[in-house]
Amino acid sequence: MSKKKLVVIGGDAAGMSAASKVRREQAGREIVVFEKGRHTSYAACGIPYFLGGLVERPEMLIAREPEIFRKKQNIDVRILHEVVRIDTGEKRVLVDDLSEGKKFWESYDELLIATGASPVVPDIDGVNAAGIFALSSLQSGIDLFRFITENKPETVVIAGGGYIGIEMAEAMADRGLKVSLIDMAGQVMTTMDEEMTRPVAEYMVKHGVKVFLGEKLEGFEKDPEGRVRKVLAGSLKLEAGLVILGLGVKPNSDIAGDAGIATGAGGAIRVNKRQESGTEGIWAAGDCAESFHLLKDRQVYVPLGTVANKQGLVAGTNISGGRAEFPGVLGTAITRFREMEVSRTGFAEKEAKELGVRYRKTIIESPSRSSYFPGSGKMTVKLIAEEKTGRLIGGQIVGMHGAAKRIDTVVAAVTAGMTVQQLVDMDLSYAPPFSPVWDPVQTAARTLL
Amino acid sequence: MSKKKLVVIGGDAAGMSAASKVRREQAGREIVVFEKGRHTSYAACGIPYFLGGLVERPEMLIAREPEIFRKKQNIDVRILHEVVRIDTGEKRVLVDDLSEGKKFWESYDELLIATGASPVVPDIDGVNAAGIFALSSLQSGIDLFRFITENKPETVVIAGGGYIGIEMAEAMADRGLKVSLIDMAGQVMTTMDEEMTRPVAEYMVKHGVKVFLGEKLEGFEKDPEGRVRKVLAGSLKLEAGLVILGLGVKPNSDIAGDAGIATGAGGAIRVNKRQESGTEGIWAAGDCAESFHLLKDRQVYVPLGTVANKQGLVAGTNISGGRAEFPGVLGTAITRFREMEVSRTGFAEKEAKELGVRYRKTIIESPSRSSYFPGSGKMTVKLIAEEKTGRLIGGQIVGMHGAAKRIDTVVAAVTAGMTVQQLVDMDLSYAPPFSPVWDPVQTAARTLL
Repeated sequence: MSKKKLVVIGGDAAGMSAASKVRREQAGREIVVFEKGRHTSYAACGIPYFLGGLVERPEMLIAREPEIFRKKQNIDVRILHEVVRIDTGEKRVLVDDLSEGKKFWESYDELLIATGASPVVPDIDGVNAAGIFALSSLQSGIDLFRFITENKPETVVIAGGGYIGIEMAEAMADRGLKVSLIDMAGQVMTTMDEEMTRPVAEYMVKHGVKVFLGEKLEGFEKDPEGRVRKVLAGSLKLEAGLVILGLGVKPNSDIAGDAGIATGAGGAIRVNKRQESGTEGIWAAGDCAESFHLLKDRQVYVPLGTVANKQGLVAGTNISGGRAEFPGVLGTAITRFREMEVSRTGFAEKEAKELGVRYRKTIIESPSRSSYFPGSGKMTVKLIAEEKTGRLIGGQIVGMHGAAKRIDTVVAAVTAGMTVQQLVDMDLSYAPPFSPVWDPVQTAARTLL
Repeated sequence: MSKKKLVVIGGDAAGMSAASKVRREQAGREIVVFEKGRHTSYAACGIPYFLGGLVERPEMLIAREPEIFRKKQNIDVRILHEVVRIDTGEKRVLVDDLSEGKKFWESYDELLIATGASPVVPDIDGVNAAGIFALSSLQSGIDLFRFITENKPETVVIAGGGYIGIEMAEAMADRGLKVSLIDMAGQVMTTMDEEMTRPVAEYMVKHGVKVFLGEKLEGFEKDPEGRVRKVLAGSLKLEAGLVILGLGVKPNSDIAGDAGIATGAGGAIRVNKRQESGTEGIWAAGDCAESFHLLKDRQVYVPLGTVANKQGLVAGTNISGGRAEFPGVLGTAITRFREMEVSRTGFAEKEAKELGVRYRKTIIESPSRSSYFPGSGKMTVKLIAEEKTGRLIGGQIVGMHGAAKRIDTVVAAVTAGMTVQQLVDMDLSYAPPFSPVWDPVQTAARTLL
């Protein structure tokens, strides 16, 4: 068993978590990882903070270099090697060695697909102009950084008000650019309910970001050198020395689909809880694969770093002969714009509606700390409970000082199937610098009762 | 029913929470509150931050003034009125009107005892010297503030390294005093395990506090004007222009005991989960009463602001004809010394040992944020699980950036009876400014597996 050769496609979070786990369990196993880029195991989530200047050098985002995997873990990592085809019949992959410009076949006994996701790039006028970026990899972040350094744009338009859009807005504002953010939806952060996102948009506006909602990106104007100059969106024509696309991502699953490996939710590779694809001997994990949603009780597509790490570990455990299952997601996510923290888990109200779940909801405002404590800010909490059982099924928090990580209390309550009453009853912590006597989450739960 | 007269002894958190709740439920009921001090509903937990200068004026700590209770809620609050005797046979209390200097009897139909707690003051040489303070009320904080302003002491000795001791050490250091802290135990924060308190003591030392452990307070030397000059403790003789006693508190339950009302854990008034004492028509809540411990499955003594508020609400609900039970505590507590945050819940290892619980434990160190993120600090997490069931029974966290409120995730897990595996499996939140990919609590849980 341990002599079976493992090939991994993709050298980032999921792929390297899996490879490292297999190595820890099976010292003698042959493990080959093909990574089409230059970098392995980097923190994609940190790219905005590198671009904003908080993280000084891009290398700081790299958790482990390819040479370290080779030397210390005996994992044969080959960067600049892109797998372009999977031959499930012959159990081999066609590899394009990008530095040498030649292709070769590599056999496998077991295959893990961890190809990640790619940013959505709309097919519109001028989208190939210089100065238009979508963050797909550490390299794309480095390229964007170089563009800013060399061209010194004064204005940036960010298309898309999701997590990436908001984090890039912070980064670009921190660099001193004039930032405009557009979204075709009537709100930022469409995974949340509209009224919870209003304080976020207002805060961004207060901090100098121009926010245009309900404006669909339609095209770009270039200057004579072929660089982007203007963004056309709905009624708008915005100056833009730089454009960043944060329009979501799609799973890199074409290579799997072409090989007859089943895809499912959001076009991601279909997997069971053990990260097995529908094709024997082939596994998938991370941003290219489905995830199980605990409340929806079905597979969904949730491309996030935490999920990728966990799925990689599960895949690695199973590939090395252990038994592990991916425990599932609740759609937990957090971000910030400067001091304004944002978090969500479980069902937003609109999801509950779509799914026909009968629910009760509440929204409360609370001080973030004891109200007399200096710097106490505002925290807004929305909780959603199932009408029939009183069980908590979702939460959203926006505000200062801990609005982000506070969602973990709600995550635990939803995971445990707690009722609103049980949340009210919990012996949560209190001290004036950190919380009012009744934690904002409990204040919301009390109101919901 | 609603015409029965309610008398409340004590106008702080528990007493006023209860009185307010009764008023909301029963508009016509007669409610009289006797408070021996000048202030009602103040945030005792905020006193150190007033003394340290973070909170500018002591009035900011008062949630609601007696006049507001009288005018807006029709609650007859009488400050400077001390109840000195309870006559359960005649259903009346003897009240000492401290401003007029005369006593009178007041009848009740129902009585709520919310007399709070008093700081432990040891009977040792010189303890009555000027400049020795124990924080018992907002007034005592104001008196301490005045002493500092008038006498400008350069040195302060804080006796006791518990929550109050640590918060007062921060406050006094912030005011520019040279701070020494002594404790007879070999550690600060004796509700935690020794190894978890070491980083706290080290951090305090690094920030200029002299910490002397294993030194028992033995007496004081006075100057000719009767002011404290030196503290004698074990092998030490410490300069002290000011002394603050943080040696714990004891329940103000003598008045109940004298009236034949049963006392229990820690000498506190015995109550059931509805906050009923053993004597009909008499209730107790807050720092003078017992609390139910969820893991120990018995009554304990836990004098804390959160508990007082909740017990007051439960008492008020029941007194006004509703039905509520105090849900119980886990011994959750948090504090900080400047940037160093400290938290605990459930069983410390030493408690598990004392109680004969077979357990597994782990201690891990984690970065507080993604390690590349600027200002990422250290966070140390200790988790304790029951050996037989794998259920989590306790947690302690010390460190930077969220070590305090992070305990709420552990609180929820312990409350829900989650196993260590279930904690590992949770979809907790992640973003670089707030957490590493694996939250420190989950990293600890993974190690414990």
